[in-house]
Amino acid sequence: MNKNQRLILVTNDDGYQSKGINALVELAREFGKVVVVAPENVQSGTSHSVSLRTPLYVNKFEHGYYCSGRPADCVKIALHELLDQKPDLVLSGINHGENTSVSAIYSGTVGAAREALLNGIDAIGLSLLDYRADADFSAAVHYSRIIIKTALDNNLKEKYCLNVNIPKLNIEEIKGIKVCRQTKGKWQEEFDYQKDKNLKNSYLLKGYFENLEPDATNTDEWAVKNNYVAVVPTSVDITDYSQLENMKEWKF
Amino acid sequence: MNKNQRLILVTNDDGYQSKGINALVELAREFGKVVVVAPENVQSGTSHSVSLRTPLYVNKFEHGYYCSGRPADCVKIALHELLDQKPDLVLSGINHGENTSVSAIYSGTVGAAREALLNGIDAIGLSLLDYRADADFSAAVHYSRIIIKTALDNNLKEKYCLNVNIPKLNIEEIKGIKVCRQTKGKWQEEFDYQKDKNLKNSYLLKGYFENLEPDATNTDEWAVKNNYVAVVPTSVDITDYSQLENMKEWKF
Repeated sequence: MNKNQRLILVTNDDGYQSKGINALVELAREFGKVVVVAPENVQSGTSHSVSLRTPLYVNKFEHGYYCSGRPADCVKIALHELLDQKPDLVLSGINHGENTSVSAIYSGTVGAAREALLNGIDAIGLSLLDYRADADFSAAVHYSRIIIKTALDNNLKEKYCLNVNIPKLNIEEIKGIKVCRQTKGKWQEEFDYQKDKNLKNSYLLKGYFENLEPDATNTDEWAVKNNYVAVVPTSVDITDYSQLENMKEWKF
Repeated sequence: MNKNQRLILVTNDDGYQSKGINALVELAREFGKVVVVAPENVQSGTSHSVSLRTPLYVNKFEHGYYCSGRPADCVKIALHELLDQKPDLVLSGINHGENTSVSAIYSGTVGAAREALLNGIDAIGLSLLDYRADADFSAAVHYSRIIIKTALDNNLKEKYCLNVNIPKLNIEEIKGIKVCRQTKGKWQEEFDYQKDKNLKNSYLLKGYFENLEPDATNTDEWAVKNNYVAVVPTSVDITDYSQLENMKEWKF
């Protein structure tokens, strides 16, 4: 497919005005016609949420549309209401902050990309390991370009959804790109407790990530910690097939 | 483990006052000491969302605590702040409405159960295929009891998270319990469009489920459509291992 025929939908979870999505829009235009449908406000941590009973509000802006809902809502409403044709690719990001290991499950960036896959569209979620609003996206754009080009050139038989994480480094400090699996890990949660001004019990989530397999070289956390870009193909099938096997003997 | 030693955390996504959670609390007490930590309000479709920047408010009630956040927040705050010991089992539900196939991904009920698994705790998400607030939970309780008992008796080596869906039928109409995998399918979305009173473009999500493999007898949708209770073991690892294999040849 040549670039003039290709339609690319761009979304994210940081909101349509973030620096990361603007970097991605510019990059995506190298590969096709770009329409943005992205959340109006920050939607970090909203996972694969959808707005079931709350109406969505949509407004136009110069690159497409912004929407009152969640990242996955943006993909749904783009496909079913806003776009004239099915996009050939959905790009989500570039996220301000990491989505490796189990953070992929909490991530609105990855949620949007998986919503595209559910609808039979190739998708790539892209995240830079830098939470700052003014993060430097130049290395992220460089490596995202390579990954998008490689994905388009290889044209897998089955539709794909890639979860890409890019270390907070300069282009030349990054050693390369590794295709890998999700790391086993978890967030060790702590909460900041206080009585608020109305004397209500208030808790604000904090916490740190614990890698349960730090030496596993085929994982996304190992990759980013060792200066590689991590690419994890993700699925929308959450069946645990090994447990399915283990449960064959169960008698109810 | 005898029932006097077992601590069971009960949560849901319909809110702490729903009929389904009250049915589950009563059932869970047959198996151990029960503490509820559940959302204050309806959280359907919130998936595995977490509240990253919004403080959570917690209040006591007769069966435990209700919380201003999402279902997965409830599990996090229960484990890290509210409970004196790690629970032996987390039960989520009984949901008013189905969570088969890809609905499992959107589901707050399943999100809460998977959050428990992430923390190394066995979990069961339970859903009745009846959305009504006054749904009849008697068959759901009957089959949930059998599944909880079987899960506790079998004591799998690896921690498990089961996604259980119970048809809207009487006890004697249900043919049995099937362990199966997630159905390939998707929601065909339509939106109700209107200009609201401020002339803003408003869209309310509607839609119907499309089963992409209606004849696959080892799937959860086949099970519930054929009058069986469906039990799908679920994972928190969303890596697509077959695509990982397909991508081995990619040169970046």
